[in-house]
Amino acid sequence: MSESPQALYKKILEISKEATVLASISGILEWDQETYMPPAAIGLRSQQIEMMAHLVHKHRISPRFKGALAKLIDLQTGTIAYDTLSQEQMAALREWRRDYLKTACLPAAFVKKLASTTSQALHAWADAKQHNRFRNFQPHLEKILTLLRKKADLLGFQEHPYDALLDLYEPEMTVGQLVPLFGRLKIALMTLLKNTQAKPRAHDQFLHQHYPPAAQMRFGQLLLKAMGFEAENSRLDQSMHPFCSGLAPSDTRMTTHIHEEIPMANFFAVLHEGGHGLYHQGLPEEHFGSPLGESVSLGIDESQSRWWETLIGHSYPFWQHFFPLLQEEFSEQLGGINLDTFYQAINIVRPSLIRIHADEVTYNLHIIIRFEIEKALIEGTLKTKEIPEVWNEKMREYLGVEPQSDSEGCLQDIHWAMGGIGYFPTYTLGNLYAAQLFETFCAQHPNWESRLHHGDLAFIRTWLEEKIYRFGRQYPPTELIQRATGHPLSEQPYIAYLTKKFNGI
Amino acid sequence: MSESPQALYKKILEISKEATVLASISGILEWDQETYMPPAAIGLRSQQIEMMAHLVHKHRISPRFKGALAKLIDLQTGTIAYDTLSQEQMAALREWRRDYLKTACLPAAFVKKLASTTSQALHAWADAKQHNRFRNFQPHLEKILTLLRKKADLLGFQEHPYDALLDLYEPEMTVGQLVPLFGRLKIALMTLLKNTQAKPRAHDQFLHQHYPPAAQMRFGQLLLKAMGFEAENSRLDQSMHPFCSGLAPSDTRMTTHIHEEIPMANFFAVLHEGGHGLYHQGLPEEHFGSPLGESVSLGIDESQSRWWETLIGHSYPFWQHFFPLLQEEFSEQLGGINLDTFYQAINIVRPSLIRIHADEVTYNLHIIIRFEIEKALIEGTLKTKEIPEVWNEKMREYLGVEPQSDSEGCLQDIHWAMGGIGYFPTYTLGNLYAAQLFETFCAQHPNWESRLHHGDLAFIRTWLEEKIYRFGRQYPPTELIQRATGHPLSEQPYIAYLTKKFNGI
Repeated sequence: MSESPQALYKKILEISKEATVLASISGILEWDQETYMPPAAIGLRSQQIEMMAHLVHKHRISPRFKGALAKLIDLQTGTIAYDTLSQEQMAALREWRRDYLKTACLPAAFVKKLASTTSQALHAWADAKQHNRFRNFQPHLEKILTLLRKKADLLGFQEHPYDALLDLYEPEMTVGQLVPLFGRLKIALMTLLKNTQAKPRAHDQFLHQHYPPAAQMRFGQLLLKAMGFEAENSRLDQSMHPFCSGLAPSDTRMTTHIHEEIPMANFFAVLHEGGHGLYHQGLPEEHFGSPLGESVSLGIDESQSRWWETLIGHSYPFWQHFFPLLQEEFSEQLGGINLDTFYQAINIVRPSLIRIHADEVTYNLHIIIRFEIEKALIEGTLKTKEIPEVWNEKMREYLGVEPQSDSEGCLQDIHWAMGGIGYFPTYTLGNLYAAQLFETFCAQHPNWESRLHHGDLAFIRTWLEEKIYRFGRQYPPTELIQRATGHPLSEQPYIAYLTKKFNGI
Repeated sequence: MSESPQALYKKILEISKEATVLASISGILEWDQETYMPPAAIGLRSQQIEMMAHLVHKHRISPRFKGALAKLIDLQTGTIAYDTLSQEQMAALREWRRDYLKTACLPAAFVKKLASTTSQALHAWADAKQHNRFRNFQPHLEKILTLLRKKADLLGFQEHPYDALLDLYEPEMTVGQLVPLFGRLKIALMTLLKNTQAKPRAHDQFLHQHYPPAAQMRFGQLLLKAMGFEAENSRLDQSMHPFCSGLAPSDTRMTTHIHEEIPMANFFAVLHEGGHGLYHQGLPEEHFGSPLGESVSLGIDESQSRWWETLIGHSYPFWQHFFPLLQEEFSEQLGGINLDTFYQAINIVRPSLIRIHADEVTYNLHIIIRFEIEKALIEGTLKTKEIPEVWNEKMREYLGVEPQSDSEGCLQDIHWAMGGIGYFPTYTLGNLYAAQLFETFCAQHPNWESRLHHGDLAFIRTWLEEKIYRFGRQYPPTELIQRATGHPLSEQPYIAYLTKKFNGI
């Protein structure tokens, strides 16, 4: 007797859930490594993480899983033969097939080779960055590129090998879409930057005094509570680099980093990671273990973090409510500062060399430089040895600043050493998605500023839940945005938002 | 071509190491659950832990493991055919065989049945304890006993079914050895108790004031540092019940519980868990993954914790060094107290109802009561419904106190509900092992008191490393003690220690 579609679906879901539980264990190991693990345990931790990765991989390409999946969806064509399955179930099957094909097409030996190459490259990169010697990293990057071109071939693509890599982070996004989008964005941002730089710059020395760590943590906790987090199912800790482990809706862990003299870096990191956290908490718990319970892409995930960090967290009404509370916690440092001065200080536009310190206007120019370079590297139209020169040229042209060393230039980011080519564009896509969503949100909530001014954040969370969280991976990113906003993805809302904001400051 | 003994040994070690790494992941999950996990994550955490337990079990009974093992050691007889293996390797093979047989003899269905029975029993016990209704727990204990008798049959034993259970916690220990040993101990302790109670009791109200948690944590850290712990490979956190996760020599995590008005409970817990921690840190790292890198028994593990908690941590010279430091941290609470008063206060002998609050004289009488009852239950000479009456009778007879409710009587401990019959005796064995080791230690270090007075703890750790830590599971517990002290296990050193100490107070 052959199994019913529902029985097969249940079987697939069960195996997928096992893999998800195993992956959530890796999540705990990684969180622990960055927060509380004694440093000497790093050797054992690497073994633990490697073993868990192996187990997750084994589950995801197991013949048991493939067998059940192939009975419901044609692995070649993606055709689903049964009409008794719900729309949601069919979406889950499509995503399972997508994941399965991407995993199964990479031979184990290739995956191992890539892992050992990037592992060595990471060490070489850290060393090259420290000693400002790009040429020590270059041969490693060369090897990575060769392997990534091979990876693109294995994964398959229609128009551009870069598409195969990009698709791992941002499903269905292509170079064909990015090039015109980023092209228009670049010109608009350069114009805007020129305009902002013509104005006198605000001062922000008062944000660079000593702000005690314990009080900083308290205020960070206050922000998360206001966003809707509860101690019952979330926590905030400290780590070298802020991150969010959305292990499950019942276990959301955010971290931040405290600089005693740069308090706003901490608070914006809290809002940023909190944005990721709300998304992961809002994913439908009943779909835990299926693609419908997962975040859809890095770009959408980033749209959620940037939403809270920038659109909300750098807005005037937000600080109308929170600045008095901040002053209460730091009366010595901020007692004599008024809201307008504070608002201008946190919104200073100042071209700089380092991406992660960039403001809302310049941030995406940093990303576009990286995208243009890595696309050319994959195409073979740019040689690795030419990177420093091209990097510095573009920095000068787009941002008007020039690195004095590769350490603060093309060696600043870890991504290429990790083999993460195709990752950078998701940062900018996150900003564009967020701004487009925000435009719709503002239209649907004309009184949002006054509600925010009074400390109401719940309605914002509810709106995002309605438009984004609850869908998991049911729709690809651009379709999700189209459904939420009624328009295809465009750079226009972002440019409009920036222009209005920075003309007003 | 057949594999060489060394190649086979290496293969066994590799599989065993994999199982150890997987088990260490469970250790992290359990540690996290008790320290930092958001409460709502408990459902997912149970799934994670269950899945890891399943994976560890699969490794340990895998045909791959059994096949390699059976080629080096006869699984029936324990005979090792090869003389090219070292003594250490042969010891490891004997222990692997031991573990394999104990795991493989239990059918999966039986293990599952026992797990679900104890899971229900744990809920029933917690409820029965809260509402003081032994009869609600009794049918669950009945079921557990039936299963444990069955388990004893499956495991096999020579003289007494209890031996099979005891052997899981304390290898090669038997009822035949315990009955006379505990019999003599009981009489001696009852006499000693009578003598101490005839004297006027010291006062200790000054130890029951408010001691701020942050300062308590600081002093706990100071104790661990003095014992030889470093932040590089260990940590101290807070949890509901103190415990030690000796995940690997590179990752030793201790926890304590802070009662704001019972500071000494915290400091003694720190010394206790620190004792476990030093043992686990001292296990030979080069044998990680083999039995030679594991703690040999619960009794020996307990001897190490009680060593630091009682023999050292309740001694006069220890506080000659540390009391001034304690006074410095808590000058308001202890400024006017002298060392003798403090020493007498921490060594008050006071029969009480609750085991975990017991002093050095009465503690083992609590254990002996439990041993006598659980032995009779397994034999069938005592019925579960008779437990409360027998418990209270024995409390009256041995300790001179009587519970007013089963919650503070036979329902106080979790062990039976967990199916842990055979576990309790290891607590008393720990005390006896420790005292016997201490007698030898004092003879070999006649100036130990003066060194301790001056804050030197390193020579104590070195001695324990030499006598205990470095052997892992190379010798069974009683042989390890015989080798370390030159004498077979006896209650005499413990009685001599207590008599001398409490006659002097």
